[in-house]
Amino acid sequence: MEVNGGSSKEMPGFLTRVWQGIISIFAMVKSCFRGFFERVWKLGKDDPRRVVHSLKVGLALTLVSLFYFMRPLYDGVGGMAIWAVMTVVVVFEYSVGATLSKGLNRGFATLLAGSLAVGVHELASLSGDKSEPIILGISVFLQATVFTFLRFFPTIKTRYDYGAMIFILTFSLVSVSGYRVDKLLEMAHQRLSTILIGSALCVLVSMLVCPVWAGEDLHNLIAKNLDKLAASVEGVVAENFKEGEGEEEGEINEENPSVLGYKCVLNSKPTEEALANFARWEPAHGPFGFRHPWKQYLKIGMAARYCAYSLEALNACTNSDSQAAQELTQHLKAVCTKVGHVSSDLLLDLSSTVKKMTTSSHTDLLVAQLNIAVQELQLALKILSNPLPVHVSIPDIVLIATVASLTVEISARVED
Amino acid sequence: MEVNGGSSKEMPGFLTRVWQGIISIFAMVKSCFRGFFERVWKLGKDDPRRVVHSLKVGLALTLVSLFYFMRPLYDGVGGMAIWAVMTVVVVFEYSVGATLSKGLNRGFATLLAGSLAVGVHELASLSGDKSEPIILGISVFLQATVFTFLRFFPTIKTRYDYGAMIFILTFSLVSVSGYRVDKLLEMAHQRLSTILIGSALCVLVSMLVCPVWAGEDLHNLIAKNLDKLAASVEGVVAENFKEGEGEEEGEINEENPSVLGYKCVLNSKPTEEALANFARWEPAHGPFGFRHPWKQYLKIGMAARYCAYSLEALNACTNSDSQAAQELTQHLKAVCTKVGHVSSDLLLDLSSTVKKMTTSSHTDLLVAQLNIAVQELQLALKILSNPLPVHVSIPDIVLIATVASLTVEISARVED
Repeated sequence: MEVNGGSSKEMPGFLTRVWQGIISIFAMVKSCFRGFFERVWKLGKDDPRRVVHSLKVGLALTLVSLFYFMRPLYDGVGGMAIWAVMTVVVVFEYSVGATLSKGLNRGFATLLAGSLAVGVHELASLSGDKSEPIILGISVFLQATVFTFLRFFPTIKTRYDYGAMIFILTFSLVSVSGYRVDKLLEMAHQRLSTILIGSALCVLVSMLVCPVWAGEDLHNLIAKNLDKLAASVEGVVAENFKEGEGEEEGEINEENPSVLGYKCVLNSKPTEEALANFARWEPAHGPFGFRHPWKQYLKIGMAARYCAYSLEALNACTNSDSQAAQELTQHLKAVCTKVGHVSSDLLLDLSSTVKKMTTSSHTDLLVAQLNIAVQELQLALKILSNPLPVHVSIPDIVLIATVASLTVEISARVED
Repeated sequence: MEVNGGSSKEMPGFLTRVWQGIISIFAMVKSCFRGFFERVWKLGKDDPRRVVHSLKVGLALTLVSLFYFMRPLYDGVGGMAIWAVMTVVVVFEYSVGATLSKGLNRGFATLLAGSLAVGVHELASLSGDKSEPIILGISVFLQATVFTFLRFFPTIKTRYDYGAMIFILTFSLVSVSGYRVDKLLEMAHQRLSTILIGSALCVLVSMLVCPVWAGEDLHNLIAKNLDKLAASVEGVVAENFKEGEGEEEGEINEENPSVLGYKCVLNSKPTEEALANFARWEPAHGPFGFRHPWKQYLKIGMAARYCAYSLEALNACTNSDSQAAQELTQHLKAVCTKVGHVSSDLLLDLSSTVKKMTTSSHTDLLVAQLNIAVQELQLALKILSNPLPVHVSIPDIVLIATVASLTVEISARVED
């Protein structure tokens, strides 16, 4: 009885604990899911084109599946319809340029490698049954070695890497399976036609349904980076002349997003190069004609990056301890701020020049203003006969270098 | 007769010209070929591992072709042996880590997507002949959309991007072809086993035949970058104090390769991140244990990059025109050169610490020396009551920032 009574007393406690455990597990799962969905939502909200891209891939795959479900189409290409599905998954990329580049690479590489492999197969089959696998094996080994090595060439690596891989793949597939398949030509023909169907579908969907142009992205990225630099130049110079906050400056700096905008520019090189590479494959669209000078964007990007390096060094100085003789900075404050301001204006002007793709009448004026401001600063430095606060002296040089290089770039850019 | 005589006179002239034309074409082709082979030779000589890698790919492909040529093996996996060939071409990468990452991604994604697709197919076939293609189409659309979107997640993008693609691919292939193929389970099983065979072969060949470890490459890259920075710090400071060559400094600078070593460090981020990402997949090898702290390398790389940014800014100042009051630089020459020298020594010491993976007894000593040198420089700047040449003041701050950050990093690094 006592035991029973004890257990009946414990039961509700045990049940409650189990119940609480279940509830807490549910809550945990719920918060996990909520966290996950919040991240998904943020990812989609940051760039809604990602959602559109996902839907486009789904659409293209469903369309290509129709080949399989509809008998007349299926009979047309034989059992190889599966290659069309595969092509869509592999070739469909985020931007039109990337899709075109992959599709064309895949198509041409399959055509070339297929014809070569059929030729080698014919030669090998002439040589008799025993030596055929040996000849085929050697040819596979040789082409794989040569083309793998060619993939290390910088020009091939940036533009035709995928094509070289598909070449090796198709050559191996055709020449190896040629040993057992009798209707080799028919197989090669079917494979080629399904790959062409898949590639064409990808290109069509990516170009017709809300296209994402790599060239446009590059254009906007460069203009946005120049805007960020303009905000940073002004911000960093202002930070340098903040008064009496010596110790806290670093922290304030961290909190100010406009000052730190240049950080994005520091590592923008791979993105810019990839976009320019894809942009080259794209047909004329919107304001961008055929053979649009995409390389100029890379040059502007590089100049902007060098400017960002200088800003980074300047910012590091601001944050370091060696802020000697604060009171002296006042002498230079006005003239340095002016240099920063004019530089910032010039960068904004360059950004709008890039955006509108026209020559701005202000550019020359601003360059002249900047030169005057820089000369004033140099004069101020020479007159000053006191020990100079170390970090003040940098902005002008940074800005001279920046503006000099940017001016050269922009004059080249304006010509297009 | 005259006409004949004329043509016989012309004939040799014509023949000579044709002959010369042929010779010049031959010469052109020859020089083209020679240029090509010189480039191939240079590419192979710069890194002989590239040649070895190409031979390894050839070897793996030839080995996998044996499945096709030998009847017992061929019968074992049915007509699907072709998937093994395909897997080898697609999965085989330059480093062991990259190959392992692709192979594991491909294997697991195929397993998961295959089982899911077979399940969906069973469900769809229960629902009757008419609605089956509709259900299959919807499921293909949904999974393609969801997984394409998931590929935008940063964590998935860096480590499981290939797996997500293979998931979409396998799911679509199995569920689409399930509509026509009767022995679906057998097909899925064969596809999985051939892919496993191909992946295993790739991993074995890449690990056993002259392996290229991404981790080792990362280790060497970081140490080499620190060495380059050390040479550049010393070189740039020395350039600053060259006398009487005002105009030509820029040119001399361009020609001196040791000074410009830091340029490689500026854009090393993508390479370092890719290597660290692959290194994480690699098993223990040589001095690198399992769970070697690869992230520390990225931190050192980042600190080195910030140092390079500062050097770039400093170098830009050296090259710019604003070299006022050259004679005054002499006052600071000794102390600045000392700061540069000690910094360079410290960087070399850090580099050897990284190379040997041990704590160096010199590090603390050098840091102390550097602090003394920097204080001397600050003192010299304060005493100096003349207008200060603008560009001299930068080295100390640059180096303080560098050394401060590198010291923090190295103390973290030494702990492992």
